[in-house]
Amino acid sequence: MSLTMYTASVPAFVRLLGNLRGILEKAAAHVESRKLEPAALIGFRLYPDMFPLVRQVQIATDMVKGCAARLAGVDVPRYEDSETSFDDLIARIDKTVAFLQGFKPGQIDGSEDKPIQLKSPRGEMNFTGLQYLQGFVLPNAYFHATTAYNILRHNGVELGKQDFIGRP
Amino acid sequence: MSLTMYTASVPAFVRLLGNLRGILEKAAAHVESRKLEPAALIGFRLYPDMFPLVRQVQIATDMVKGCAARLAGVDVPRYEDSETSFDDLIARIDKTVAFLQGFKPGQIDGSEDKPIQLKSPRGEMNFTGLQYLQGFVLPNAYFHATTAYNILRHNGVELGKQDFIGRP
Repeated sequence: MSLTMYTASVPAFVRLLGNLRGILEKAAAHVESRKLEPAALIGFRLYPDMFPLVRQVQIATDMVKGCAARLAGVDVPRYEDSETSFDDLIARIDKTVAFLQGFKPGQIDGSEDKPIQLKSPRGEMNFTGLQYLQGFVLPNAYFHATTAYNILRHNGVELGKQDFIGRP
Repeated sequence: MSLTMYTASVPAFVRLLGNLRGILEKAAAHVESRKLEPAALIGFRLYPDMFPLVRQVQIATDMVKGCAARLAGVDVPRYEDSETSFDDLIARIDKTVAFLQGFKPGQIDGSEDKPIQLKSPRGEMNFTGLQYLQGFVLPNAYFHATTAYNILRHNGVELGKQDFIGRP
């Protein structure tokens, strides 16, 4: 396999989300077996002004669906951000993986220099496709997936780094 | 800039480490201004069987120096893992960045299919160069850098995600 904008994005995202899905399944089983309140984990923050678990998963999925869509020049699907359970979060991951799997390499390859503009309340960000993928989406996606993992580990869910990294 | 094994590795690693360096500098300033014991942060773990901050930084740097060296086919430098202060950790980052900056694109480009073997007490891992970079080194490097960030945030160091992501 050669390194292209497609191979550096879609398969890496699908794998990251598949691993995150496995982590959330273990968390759901942990909660179930101990009769815990799922919201205690789903709403948990590592510090009061950090995002809770639910938002970490939402942002990780937003990052990768936005990236594939923008690099391919198609509309970014909007999600409602209404997840309240582990099942909801897993369904969001599955929906995102299905969306990603709809892309063909030819839609994304060659987008290194494509201008990408993001608008947020804090202003505009302008990237090339390569800067956007490498310097924004990948660090953000790994950041939020790792923070989800760390929230769960901090709360005693039995996970190991292998759950996060998976198999190549 | 086009996407190659070099551009997907060395510049991404240098940026990740530069951002991590800034995060550690803020942590050092936090400790200094509050007259805290630096070891309280350097030895902090998010859970008893997770690695402490010092080890997160050690592994993040090990991942990226190992990757550049193996893809280029040169010896991986050995570090002593003797850091006990923020200055030590920052020096380790600086040493790693200097090592990375010594590579030229031609040493790393085209290594997608290069066989890479890692040996650990748990066995051998065999990758192609592309699998090793994308499926092992990048997720690991971001994982350990994010966990360092999360340890510091959890302890009240004033950081924001922008410190982790940096500017493209």
